[in-house]
Amino acid sequence: MPKVDYLLTNALVLTMDEDLTQYDPGAVAVTGDSIIAVGREDKLRRKYTAAHVIDCEGKILMPGLVNAHTHVPMTLLRGLADDLRLDVWLLGYMMPVEREFVSPEFVYLGTQLACAELIRSGVTSFADMYYFEEDVAKATAEAGLRAVCSQTVLKFPTPDATSFEDSLAYARDFIQRWKGHPLIVPSVAPHAPYTCTEEILHATAELAAEFDVPLHIHLAETAIEVENMREAEGIPVVPYVKKQGLFGAKVLAAHCVHIDIGEMRTLLHANAGVAHNPSSNLKLASGVAPVPKMIELGLNVGIGTDGPASNNDLDMFEEVRLTAFLAKGISGDPTAIPAATALTMATRLGANALHIGDLTGSLEPGKRADLILVDISPTHNSPHFRRDPQSAYVQIVYAAKATDVTDVMVNGKWLMREHELLTLNEADLLVQAQEYAQRIDAFLAEREQSLLSKLIALGGSSEAESFEVQVKVKLDDPAPVLTALESSELEIVRTRHYREYDVYFLFDDPVQGRLRYREDEFIDKKGNVTNVRARLTLIGPARESQLKHDVLLSRSRYLAPATNSLRFYREYFNPKSEQVVQKDRLRWLVRFKDTEFFVNLDRFEKPDLGYFLEIKSRTWSRKDAGRKAKMASQLIELLGAAGQETVTQDYIEIIQTD
Amino acid sequence: MPKVDYLLTNALVLTMDEDLTQYDPGAVAVTGDSIIAVGREDKLRRKYTAAHVIDCEGKILMPGLVNAHTHVPMTLLRGLADDLRLDVWLLGYMMPVEREFVSPEFVYLGTQLACAELIRSGVTSFADMYYFEEDVAKATAEAGLRAVCSQTVLKFPTPDATSFEDSLAYARDFIQRWKGHPLIVPSVAPHAPYTCTEEILHATAELAAEFDVPLHIHLAETAIEVENMREAEGIPVVPYVKKQGLFGAKVLAAHCVHIDIGEMRTLLHANAGVAHNPSSNLKLASGVAPVPKMIELGLNVGIGTDGPASNNDLDMFEEVRLTAFLAKGISGDPTAIPAATALTMATRLGANALHIGDLTGSLEPGKRADLILVDISPTHNSPHFRRDPQSAYVQIVYAAKATDVTDVMVNGKWLMREHELLTLNEADLLVQAQEYAQRIDAFLAEREQSLLSKLIALGGSSEAESFEVQVKVKLDDPAPVLTALESSELEIVRTRHYREYDVYFLFDDPVQGRLRYREDEFIDKKGNVTNVRARLTLIGPARESQLKHDVLLSRSRYLAPATNSLRFYREYFNPKSEQVVQKDRLRWLVRFKDTEFFVNLDRFEKPDLGYFLEIKSRTWSRKDAGRKAKMASQLIELLGAAGQETVTQDYIEIIQTD
Repeated sequence: MPKVDYLLTNALVLTMDEDLTQYDPGAVAVTGDSIIAVGREDKLRRKYTAAHVIDCEGKILMPGLVNAHTHVPMTLLRGLADDLRLDVWLLGYMMPVEREFVSPEFVYLGTQLACAELIRSGVTSFADMYYFEEDVAKATAEAGLRAVCSQTVLKFPTPDATSFEDSLAYARDFIQRWKGHPLIVPSVAPHAPYTCTEEILHATAELAAEFDVPLHIHLAETAIEVENMREAEGIPVVPYVKKQGLFGAKVLAAHCVHIDIGEMRTLLHANAGVAHNPSSNLKLASGVAPVPKMIELGLNVGIGTDGPASNNDLDMFEEVRLTAFLAKGISGDPTAIPAATALTMATRLGANALHIGDLTGSLEPGKRADLILVDISPTHNSPHFRRDPQSAYVQIVYAAKATDVTDVMVNGKWLMREHELLTLNEADLLVQAQEYAQRIDAFLAEREQSLLSKLIALGGSSEAESFEVQVKVKLDDPAPVLTALESSELEIVRTRHYREYDVYFLFDDPVQGRLRYREDEFIDKKGNVTNVRARLTLIGPARESQLKHDVLLSRSRYLAPATNSLRFYREYFNPKSEQVVQKDRLRWLVRFKDTEFFVNLDRFEKPDLGYFLEIKSRTWSRKDAGRKAKMASQLIELLGAAGQETVTQDYIEIIQTD
Repeated sequence: MPKVDYLLTNALVLTMDEDLTQYDPGAVAVTGDSIIAVGREDKLRRKYTAAHVIDCEGKILMPGLVNAHTHVPMTLLRGLADDLRLDVWLLGYMMPVEREFVSPEFVYLGTQLACAELIRSGVTSFADMYYFEEDVAKATAEAGLRAVCSQTVLKFPTPDATSFEDSLAYARDFIQRWKGHPLIVPSVAPHAPYTCTEEILHATAELAAEFDVPLHIHLAETAIEVENMREAEGIPVVPYVKKQGLFGAKVLAAHCVHIDIGEMRTLLHANAGVAHNPSSNLKLASGVAPVPKMIELGLNVGIGTDGPASNNDLDMFEEVRLTAFLAKGISGDPTAIPAATALTMATRLGANALHIGDLTGSLEPGKRADLILVDISPTHNSPHFRRDPQSAYVQIVYAAKATDVTDVMVNGKWLMREHELLTLNEADLLVQAQEYAQRIDAFLAEREQSLLSKLIALGGSSEAESFEVQVKVKLDDPAPVLTALESSELEIVRTRHYREYDVYFLFDDPVQGRLRYREDEFIDKKGNVTNVRARLTLIGPARESQLKHDVLLSRSRYLAPATNSLRFYREYFNPKSEQVVQKDRLRWLVRFKDTEFFVNLDRFEKPDLGYFLEIKSRTWSRKDAGRKAKMASQLIELLGAAGQETVTQDYIEIIQTD
């Protein structure tokens, strides 16, 4: 009788093969890294002797789960920031923290922590996408898990590269050195169409094709991504990436929430895999992917958790259940994606989606021994009905928990026995992870204490601590000023007309200052809007006292172009209250006695405060400021506004004290 | 110093009170059944001595979860039938099995099993609705859990009552005897508006009001329920039950998936509680309740699992997470129902919804000591961020698992310590539950073996094992038959005109026979459809051999009115294949030599087989059959169809062999 390394007996074997063959009581024979035989226990016992005969005690023996899309090192950012909009979450928290903390050490530790969680919850293969991917690969291989490890390439600087050329060189080097590893399939990940240039998409597709490795990408995750693509290119996302030659590679497309049937067919013909991430898509409010249609068409749709910073865990049992639930609830058809289909997605179809279906995803002779035991005896999964072969899938999908997984084998090697991890020192990892969390908490806590730090964390802000001389008077009638501007004592250098829409964010602590979000509409002589500019200005508390003649030395300012929406900044800065100010501004740059001044004639529309005349000039010394303050007073007089009510407050202060 | 029974220390205390107060490290003091104090550990240690000082080891200490809607005895039917439409699931499986198995013993055991699962997953209170509710109450009180136990009243016979009057009397008796129990709040449950008469709604509301106990009901679970209500009554479901006086009672309304803002306001003004059941609503494809709007309006919306036969478990951690996820994913707003709100729904708001908010739902002095400890140290919940007070809710809602609950106290009494159940013998319950499952499996397996059993299980079918003489001939031209029918040798008793739409369900095993779903359209002389009738006919295999003259003694038949849709029967009987037959039939009842015969002139439209003449007569003896067979041949001749091709097969057989 041939001798095998392991004979796993006394199990309800779910092979998850094409015919969904079950054996009860069934057995699996393993030698080296591979499955030798799967079948009825009595048959296999007659056919093989084994170095180790394992009694599975009636548990379910099935292929390990395939987590089709994740970012494993982000375990270290789990629960860092939640219930926020995608942009606030990403630009306000994830990216600043990643810029500060992500290093090879961070990635290695985060991956180890993730591997512990993945093994505990019955995952034997996963597809990752992150930075320093070689360190993900190292930690994964040491933990004994199988993975497609995809090095991210972006058009922006990343924690591991200052340019996309560097990322690409890193990816090439990584792929060359890891190609052929028994557990790791190296891969390249152009992050998404909207974060990559066409050049990046072409180059990464060529790289993946050259080495025959998968290409991993986020596709059509949000409706806005598709909308923007249609606006810019006139086509949806899938045809666009096809045009960039992406399907020359073996593609794994994550999300595909917003794709149509034509795009599904394109993916099918390209033999692309899809990773469905139901928890992440709900939690980030991206929507629900059209899974029943994709499955009906025959696409290899796997299931993923996405990164633990947006899920917040790596529990595939939850995802499988949610896949079945959502398909029914959204389509209105309770027979959509039955339990067996959901579980097939999480195993065989998932492996196919990762382009490792020849290695794993089902219990079949010749495939690698990637398998798990699931205890279905707990109270929450009792009793058991067995008249219908669907019952076993129903038990796993609708009632089993990740914590019911007792044993995990990958590539013929045990990684967990009776809930005990064999390849990782979990207690040690938890201590290290908590140290990182405390450092990150401290970093963010410090930032949150200061508006300025939060502004700077967004990037692109610059300090403009110019001292300014400014004086303003309230006008009953603007006509005399307009006439006086034609005075021969003034030279008008240039004239501008704006409409200014300001939202002031106000905070409890006056030391913080105020943040102003301003949209300037530039108006031409015909009254048309020619341009719109949005800027953020952090206005510090006044640093200098008032000069005589009611002239003020202004405050420090930090300016940043407002590349995100007002809504974004509102959620990111979380002001105590807000004040809207809307005005029409005529602005002249005038030369008065060889000195330049700005003259603003403002009409307040919201709130309705009437007209103000404002004189401003930059200054760099106290002496110069004194001189300009005096001149500004003269200018007020020249413009016929002397004797009017002089105001020293900023407009926002006038409004607040009204 | 005052002495308390328990001082729970070294915990992160989430009080879930109105201000969402947290204490870290916090403590809770308990004496008897009640909470004496909640606060900072150092303060409570200075203020109280305790018989038992418990070190909570940094775990989260919070109020127990409130499962706002369930049918606990249905643990015994968990995984019995899944991925089916509501009607197939309910009429085809649940109701036949309940008719056969539900007894006080079943209910008692199922409740014990459920209590074990509920305690393990951190639930301390629940709202139940089932039959023999007194046995639910007994088992729950013995297990030490708190519950609103609602006796179901229906317009149909139930496992515990042959009429609604009996149910109502049972409910009154139950309420009288249990009112004032320290753990159990007895209650009445008119099942749903569509399963109750107006009389039942009135009577149950009056009963609940009389004893000041809650009234528990399913409301607006499916779109079709609302549609039917609008058709029948011209108003949606909530105004309808208001009209029936339902809000004279303290209502707990389960589901409310399909209600509008006006209905929400009505529920709010009636101080009705709502139980949101996200898993069940998705799994049965009912839809997604408008939770963010209900919460915004200030409704007491709790969260429930619904029964374990449609979920398939009692895991409130899943439901809380899904509540937050769905709110975001469906509204498109990732800030909808943040973690703290979801957890409030599962605790304080849930208790309010059950009308027991004065007793439980938050950790506040004076409330009952219903509390749990949750271990947040496992890998899947690490690391921890603590700069934001939301982090603790985020950890519980997005990453914690039901299995992380280590300790449970209800009414000041420990029900679980360190994962060990103290009031139930779980191993024993599992054995008993499995015995029930095997009996149910056997019952269904036997039924599934026979089409007839499945038909009978639906109810209303009757056997019509009439022997029939029948002969048919294919006609090239029907005109001669129509002329010959005017022959003086025939008396025409009556004439009918139908269009018949048949779908034959065909199965692998010929012994099973065939099932025919037939819709008859009755046509009047003007060609208008006057009536439609749908019938199911199970046609057994031929029992008698052919007589001479190509006359056949027919098969046994079982008839049932087809009160459900074709789709229902298709899914319930799950045929191997189907055959559609559509024909126009002129039918005469004629008297020929003092014997009545049916003469059918059939024109086959689908498939297009042309005309057939069929002669039929009922018979009850072999001798009578011989006589009628001979006469039928004569009748064929009389009608001018002799010499045409005679057919002995049933139409369906002709079609199948074509």
